[in-house]
Amino acid sequence: MNTRRIKMKSWRDNIRNVVPYTPGEQPKEDGVIKLNTNENPYPPSPKVLEAMNHIKHLRKYPDPAAADLTEAISSYYGLNRDEVFVGVGSDDVLAIAFLTFFNSGKPVFFPDITYSFYDVWAGLFQIPYETKALDEEFGIHAGDYYGENGGVIFPNPNAPTGALLELETVRDILDHNRDVLVIVDEAYIDFGGESARSLIPEYDNLLVVQTYSKSRSLAGLRIGYAMGNKELIKAMNDVKYSFNSYTMNEPAIVMGKAAIEDEKYFQKTREKIINTREWFQEELRNLGFAFADSKANFVFASHESIPAKELFEAAKREKIYVRYFDKPRIDNYLRITIGTDDEMQTLVKFLKKQIRP
Amino acid sequence: MNTRRIKMKSWRDNIRNVVPYTPGEQPKEDGVIKLNTNENPYPPSPKVLEAMNHIKHLRKYPDPAAADLTEAISSYYGLNRDEVFVGVGSDDVLAIAFLTFFNSGKPVFFPDITYSFYDVWAGLFQIPYETKALDEEFGIHAGDYYGENGGVIFPNPNAPTGALLELETVRDILDHNRDVLVIVDEAYIDFGGESARSLIPEYDNLLVVQTYSKSRSLAGLRIGYAMGNKELIKAMNDVKYSFNSYTMNEPAIVMGKAAIEDEKYFQKTREKIINTREWFQEELRNLGFAFADSKANFVFASHESIPAKELFEAAKREKIYVRYFDKPRIDNYLRITIGTDDEMQTLVKFLKKQIRP
Repeated sequence: MNTRRIKMKSWRDNIRNVVPYTPGEQPKEDGVIKLNTNENPYPPSPKVLEAMNHIKHLRKYPDPAAADLTEAISSYYGLNRDEVFVGVGSDDVLAIAFLTFFNSGKPVFFPDITYSFYDVWAGLFQIPYETKALDEEFGIHAGDYYGENGGVIFPNPNAPTGALLELETVRDILDHNRDVLVIVDEAYIDFGGESARSLIPEYDNLLVVQTYSKSRSLAGLRIGYAMGNKELIKAMNDVKYSFNSYTMNEPAIVMGKAAIEDEKYFQKTREKIINTREWFQEELRNLGFAFADSKANFVFASHESIPAKELFEAAKREKIYVRYFDKPRIDNYLRITIGTDDEMQTLVKFLKKQIRP
Repeated sequence: MNTRRIKMKSWRDNIRNVVPYTPGEQPKEDGVIKLNTNENPYPPSPKVLEAMNHIKHLRKYPDPAAADLTEAISSYYGLNRDEVFVGVGSDDVLAIAFLTFFNSGKPVFFPDITYSFYDVWAGLFQIPYETKALDEEFGIHAGDYYGENGGVIFPNPNAPTGALLELETVRDILDHNRDVLVIVDEAYIDFGGESARSLIPEYDNLLVVQTYSKSRSLAGLRIGYAMGNKELIKAMNDVKYSFNSYTMNEPAIVMGKAAIEDEKYFQKTREKIINTREWFQEELRNLGFAFADSKANFVFASHESIPAKELFEAAKREKIYVRYFDKPRIDNYLRITIGTDDEMQTLVKFLKKQIRP
């Protein structure tokens, strides 16, 4: 039988060629200790659930500007409303920023070990990029970002390493990149870093991106935001209104406002996580793990003798999910989210058993 | 004083050049009769609000595949789960479809009078396009879509005209475009048209897009979906996972599932709107308005003597909001959403006063 296929013209030929991002597993079984996607182990503020009762008019379109939410966020930070852009999680915000600002044709610079969505967005929008190698201790060197480029982006603290860049280093990178956009992706900043937000009045090319998914315990609501001068925010809104006018649904607007207004609850859970992290890092050290000091809600650690992949798989069998990246330079590391004290104690117990059986 | 400015290199030079879509006004004052954005005048099914009590785990990321929702939608239509794509309103779904499929460099075809977001997406993603003129009665002619192109998209019923294309004409367009993607945008199909969904098994290049914002009274929740063969849906998911993994928040997944499961409520409100529309069209006819017979939840009407803009502004002064497009060929038309019987009676009373003072 002749099975040769004749190549026909087809809609298939014009499909955009992408390599999608792979999100961490969301196991559906019960009794799992889930330390693989950097979620907050504590529920959101009780005021968020209370606010749910004030959701109304679902039949109507939400406010396309999500003004109640952007006003709550901007007033929390002492910014003007036109200095804040909101989106469906910080991934939406970052995707819109890539599409809005990285159009020079020159390569965008970011670290070689970093949030693994950056090269995905670059691929999707056909933006050239160059990665800059972190040093052996997973440090970012400002000097690597001095050359001519189409923009700069890095997370601070970096992901998945957890390492923090001091504000003076961020400023140094900004000083050497006044004519391109510099995005500081601060998804984890609330767990111990100093935000670059304070530099916004000085640098009109600085965009600071944060999220509700980590420190505000609301990954399920999908809220992220960018802060920057109003020209940047207007440019992002123009692109957003060219893609989807109504991105923030009514529950996100109503509950998102309530969440940022409960400062006391925020501080309490944030401190709990920081304390647990410090204790857990000490335990890891005693067990023979190496890691950069984390200022995030996770630790990126490598054991002196047991391969990370082995630990990852053994943990999974015990229903403990951590994150493992099968990538060059980091394939012997585990990224472990900081859970409750109980969860971390269970993990430590498991590790002790693995390491000193 | 020398005020010449020296042109510097700037991040501003690389901002994406767009002409954003302008959504209809969302007036914030009370006591407004809002007939300008084709929302459903009836609230969503009571089961949607009940479902709100089952929202949990907001601290965790939602299921990136939104499986509970896509399963509910696919089983409602008798499709497989991998034949349905969900997004943040049908605008999100359509934007992703443009980005996924319209990459041939050849012009995409759509009507000259149509949903005004199509040329915005084409502009955003730098997709060439050609518009095909509707006839004097606002009809689409299949023959206009036979030529070589990079894809075809049209709403059915068309917006803002409300005119329906018979399924045989849709089939004719598909038959002449087997090697490109054809998108039938069925935002209003539930108000009296026959969906092209039944053609999916025959045409692997057909994508049918629908929404919760009109017939399911849930514009505030932001849910749209595409139906097509699994290869198309996979291609869209790949692009979605390259843009934002978690687009559907937990409230949208939980409430969206509840909404599509309440068939009885859906049929009841749908029929009410159809009945109101038929009565209202009769009233408009008696008042000297001309319009294509509408199969949507709006009527696109022009008066024989009073300019549309004048009526639009007079109505607004009475807190009755309808939609007016200041565009060639349609600048003497009003797009009037079908509200409750009471709302439409108030509008008719107002129109009578304007027309025969």
